[in-house]
Amino acid sequence: MGLEIYNDNSHICVVFRDLVVGEAVQANQVMLFDHGHAALIDPGGDLTYSRLFAAINKYLDVKKLDYVVASHQDPDVIASVSKWLEDTDCNIVVPALWERFVPHFTCPGGLTNRVVPIPDGGLNLSLGDSYIQALPAHFLHAEGNFSFYDPISRILFSGDIGANLPPAGLDEPITQLKEILPFMEGFHRRYMNANRVCRYWVNMIRGLDVESIVPQHGRAFLGKQVVNEFLDWLEQLECGIDLVNQSLYQVPQADA
Amino acid sequence: MGLEIYNDNSHICVVFRDLVVGEAVQANQVMLFDHGHAALIDPGGDLTYSRLFAAINKYLDVKKLDYVVASHQDPDVIASVSKWLEDTDCNIVVPALWERFVPHFTCPGGLTNRVVPIPDGGLNLSLGDSYIQALPAHFLHAEGNFSFYDPISRILFSGDIGANLPPAGLDEPITQLKEILPFMEGFHRRYMNANRVCRYWVNMIRGLDVESIVPQHGRAFLGKQVVNEFLDWLEQLECGIDLVNQSLYQVPQADA
Repeated sequence: MGLEIYNDNSHICVVFRDLVVGEAVQANQVMLFDHGHAALIDPGGDLTYSRLFAAINKYLDVKKLDYVVASHQDPDVIASVSKWLEDTDCNIVVPALWERFVPHFTCPGGLTNRVVPIPDGGLNLSLGDSYIQALPAHFLHAEGNFSFYDPISRILFSGDIGANLPPAGLDEPITQLKEILPFMEGFHRRYMNANRVCRYWVNMIRGLDVESIVPQHGRAFLGKQVVNEFLDWLEQLECGIDLVNQSLYQVPQADA
Repeated sequence: MGLEIYNDNSHICVVFRDLVVGEAVQANQVMLFDHGHAALIDPGGDLTYSRLFAAINKYLDVKKLDYVVASHQDPDVIASVSKWLEDTDCNIVVPALWERFVPHFTCPGGLTNRVVPIPDGGLNLSLGDSYIQALPAHFLHAEGNFSFYDPISRILFSGDIGANLPPAGLDEPITQLKEILPFMEGFHRRYMNANRVCRYWVNMIRGLDVESIVPQHGRAFLGKQVVNEFLDWLEQLECGIDLVNQSLYQVPQADA
């Protein structure tokens, strides 16, 4: 019910990895807390809402939650948005590209004056005495998509980039890339859009001081050595449209 | 409240273009009916549910709806899935790639034994005495994505491909591409993933007998002449990762 991955009393990062049940793909939810203020990153859908609400109640009066932040528009990221809007005073921070799509999760008017759109170039989002950096991650996978960097903990919350689906041991950090590759490679080859955008993202990340990468699915990468191993791997990955050809785009046979 | 775009008594196609209200992006919903059986394509989110349910009640006992079909996983496509599951006996037809993401819209177990996954290569979905063809449209825009062709009406329901957002006249068909280009080009350049996949999709579609293209947003293309004009335009469009470079992938400035 929540693993504290950073805590210096005034600044706390918590990852929830066990809230999704049933046939849905496992997903992580993150709470960032700074000096009495808090943001949830990718809180998920109806499956996780009640337990996540109860779990973060330990840290703050949830009604006063500052932000619900969405890396992109997928249901495992943000399908619970209407519940957070109803039950808390939070603003919803979403890629500008999806600003007019997210209202389809809600009732008419539910998002009026409560959206902070993230422009394509990213932004620095104030939180307590600190800030969260929204880093462009477009086409990895969604067309409008962001990773989030916390300069205090030096943790990169990378969204679907680095997502992995091992059968167990979710709270155990990855220290060598080879441990996790079998549970990561297929997803990245099919869902990430092209090597070209992987390279742009890796070049940007290399300019930051990253101690750990926490993706939206599965285990975290801990320590600079495995972070660099991961970046080296992603930089050379062929994926998405690099791998498709006309044979995938065919009218299905009448007897199929 | 629904425009019949084909009706030979036993086979009926209806498009709904006026159900989305408020700040959400306009979206079309489609009902295909054949000999007493029916499918909804991309029925949308909570914004459209009640009015769509009431509107199709004219054609069938909605409880007996056969299918809710989703071209991809976006909220404007399928956020109402849990309501359709609760209130009707329908099966949910979704790209296999999103099969484990869609349960995040629902309660645990809500989709058990009610999903028809569409494999990457597409499928022919039986409906009454006919069928609907799910045609691969991956990366246009979603990584797992389908267009749907109805061989009786010869209408192609193209999803986001051809989507347009004009200020008015939604039920008026497009007969010349130049009428609609200003309301279509920006969206396609940013959301469609690459020219390469546009070309594969166009090549596939040229093999079909298409009288009309009905996208998920905006007006329909009516007649072979404008259908071909649209295909010629899409085939040469640079878009998505064709247009990005390292300058888009930068850490935002601290004072931004």
